[in-house]
Amino acid sequence: MAATTNQRIDGARLWDLLMEMAEIGATPKGGVRRLTLTEVDRAGRERFRAHCEAAGLKVRVDAIGNMFARREGRDPNRKPVLMGSHLDSQPSGGKFDGALGVLAGLEVMRSLNDLGIVTEAPIELINWTDEEGSRFGRSLMGSGAWAGVYALEDVYKLADTEGVTVGTALDAIGFRGTEPARPFAADAYFELHIEQGPILEKEGKQIGIVTGAQAQVWYNATIIGRDSHAGTTPPSARKDALVAAARVIDLVDRMMRARGEDGRGTVGELHVLPNSRNVIPGEVRFSVEFRHPIDAEIDRLDAQFPREAGFIARDCGVTLQLDKLFKVAHQPFDPGCVDLVRQASAKLGYSTREIVSGAGHDAVYVARHIPTAMIFTPCKDGLSHNEEESIEPQEAEAGAQVLFEAVLARANRTL
Amino acid sequence: MAATTNQRIDGARLWDLLMEMAEIGATPKGGVRRLTLTEVDRAGRERFRAHCEAAGLKVRVDAIGNMFARREGRDPNRKPVLMGSHLDSQPSGGKFDGALGVLAGLEVMRSLNDLGIVTEAPIELINWTDEEGSRFGRSLMGSGAWAGVYALEDVYKLADTEGVTVGTALDAIGFRGTEPARPFAADAYFELHIEQGPILEKEGKQIGIVTGAQAQVWYNATIIGRDSHAGTTPPSARKDALVAAARVIDLVDRMMRARGEDGRGTVGELHVLPNSRNVIPGEVRFSVEFRHPIDAEIDRLDAQFPREAGFIARDCGVTLQLDKLFKVAHQPFDPGCVDLVRQASAKLGYSTREIVSGAGHDAVYVARHIPTAMIFTPCKDGLSHNEEESIEPQEAEAGAQVLFEAVLARANRTL
Repeated sequence: MAATTNQRIDGARLWDLLMEMAEIGATPKGGVRRLTLTEVDRAGRERFRAHCEAAGLKVRVDAIGNMFARREGRDPNRKPVLMGSHLDSQPSGGKFDGALGVLAGLEVMRSLNDLGIVTEAPIELINWTDEEGSRFGRSLMGSGAWAGVYALEDVYKLADTEGVTVGTALDAIGFRGTEPARPFAADAYFELHIEQGPILEKEGKQIGIVTGAQAQVWYNATIIGRDSHAGTTPPSARKDALVAAARVIDLVDRMMRARGEDGRGTVGELHVLPNSRNVIPGEVRFSVEFRHPIDAEIDRLDAQFPREAGFIARDCGVTLQLDKLFKVAHQPFDPGCVDLVRQASAKLGYSTREIVSGAGHDAVYVARHIPTAMIFTPCKDGLSHNEEESIEPQEAEAGAQVLFEAVLARANRTL
Repeated sequence: MAATTNQRIDGARLWDLLMEMAEIGATPKGGVRRLTLTEVDRAGRERFRAHCEAAGLKVRVDAIGNMFARREGRDPNRKPVLMGSHLDSQPSGGKFDGALGVLAGLEVMRSLNDLGIVTEAPIELINWTDEEGSRFGRSLMGSGAWAGVYALEDVYKLADTEGVTVGTALDAIGFRGTEPARPFAADAYFELHIEQGPILEKEGKQIGIVTGAQAQVWYNATIIGRDSHAGTTPPSARKDALVAAARVIDLVDRMMRARGEDGRGTVGELHVLPNSRNVIPGEVRFSVEFRHPIDAEIDRLDAQFPREAGFIARDCGVTLQLDKLFKVAHQPFDPGCVDLVRQASAKLGYSTREIVSGAGHDAVYVARHIPTAMIFTPCKDGLSHNEEESIEPQEAEAGAQVLFEAVLARANRTL
């Protein structure tokens, strides 16, 4: 459908910018490896800063490396409208997870310049540090430290597998900034992101109006059985930790499916000991996570799953230890901000669907302090956290155009 | 019960010898790590050779490192009676798996000397190379090469994870011998081994009269699904390779249990890709093996399992590739040799049980060429391939005494 506005962002320029950034940490399979606080990340950050400064933005960096690029408004007393996402990637990540939100924000700034628009409120574009958590094991690290979810001193001490700490890595790439890493007065936060799931594509929708983020509960599980010889140990004498783990994995899948298409339940990581084909496994360690848009469902899962997994362990003659890593409630986004996304999409004539984010995003922590909304765009086959992650130029353009409209409307609203 | 013979082996001396050998490659947890063709294995072999030569035995080594220690008989025209087992261990192995059979054989030789016995036929004691298969991935390597199951030239080329080949490793420890590695004329082969299972202990039996070895079928399985984001991918869009693998693991266990206490079915080794808690597993690789005393049951399993595992894969929307590594028929032992074990146990007043070996043993390949029998003794809790593997001195003594009687009877039999 045709847009009913003359104020257009430049889709081709945005796509060129996405492709330019994807060269930094490009992998042979067409993905990106831009792990947080590495030299590759530094290169991405420097490129981003240079583009921001060329667009007349003033860039500041906070104590955890979050970057803020500011465009002044007409009224110096108004709180800024924020937008952003992250430039770091998974070890075998795609070109668009995070980068789309940051670079679409830059295109919004460039278009405001081109169109000669002076907004009432200032606008700030953010590149959050370490959204992915792949290097230091703490996802949403930069926005979490900023929002006070994590203590800065604790975060500095987190180490990667080589023993390099966050503090050392920040200094090494020159991005331990002077601004305090804590919430400041801001009017709103908008984040554009690929859906990382198949729903929009499957339903043929251009824009996902994200109303909030799912509730989650995460566990570490350890099953202890007994190593013994695979050829000589009869069924009655076996304490096979892997057979028990297999039944728990099946349980996770069944508990997910019992909740229909909104359910999420995954065992993504699993280690077998001693992991020798001739030995009945004596120990298995694995991750378990459930997500659902409704808090009460996560509460029910958190009550049912440990009990039913315990029955499986008992029946298999093994012991199960479940450590709950965290349980977080559903995070609703701000109705006013969500409505601006809805209005912008309608004005532009895009097909839409309301959606709850299944993934964690920086927006979830920002929303604890500042009115927040997110915009989703489709990705091919719903694939993300995968080098084959892919989107079309017109999908990126549509998302950026909605971001432009929503941010502009918020920055110019009558207070 | 009291033994009804005055010809006794020296149980205390045997135990001392077992403890002496267990020091070579001893692990902090009380086990043994004596990987084949390493410096530790060389030390064990040198100790064994020195003891053999001190007992007046003549030691020769064949082209795959198998060691043969010969005690001459009265009649130089008679074929030798063989006994033996292996001195190599699993990476985290026990003190007795293999070592008991070799060192009990040495005690038999020493006792024959002490008792001034000249047998009619010569007797040879064998230390087979690389029974465990842990280093080069080929179990029963030495006896298999000797028996013609594996071509020597192929075996020489097998490499460990460091890239060191069997040929290089044999030369490095000085055990590439000059004797051809092939069957020679021999009258019988007897192997004493711990049961590596719980049956004898559970039934309170001192001696297992091994009538043969189980039929087996081994597979490598690969399931290919699709990596995707754990938080955003709804149930209908998932192709979770680990959920499918879990159901196949459960299938293996159920197919085993459907065959009662004689069934064996194990997934011992499993690898998940990408193995990240936030990513639905796209690929899982694992081992599958079934064993049963009856060939027809293995044939049935080999027909049913691929079909039913294929249904699971289809229902999960993933692909399953099954590679059959091998299928071997049940190997019955020689009725005459088995009867000598039965008679010896009865003469000595030991409680017995006929048993089918669940593990592979060098005796299984030797039996393809030479009349063979095995003697099992109990081990604590049936544990083996485990550093806690444990037996009592009187159990070792009983096994060695039966070995002595059976070998002596065979070597002195009227032809």
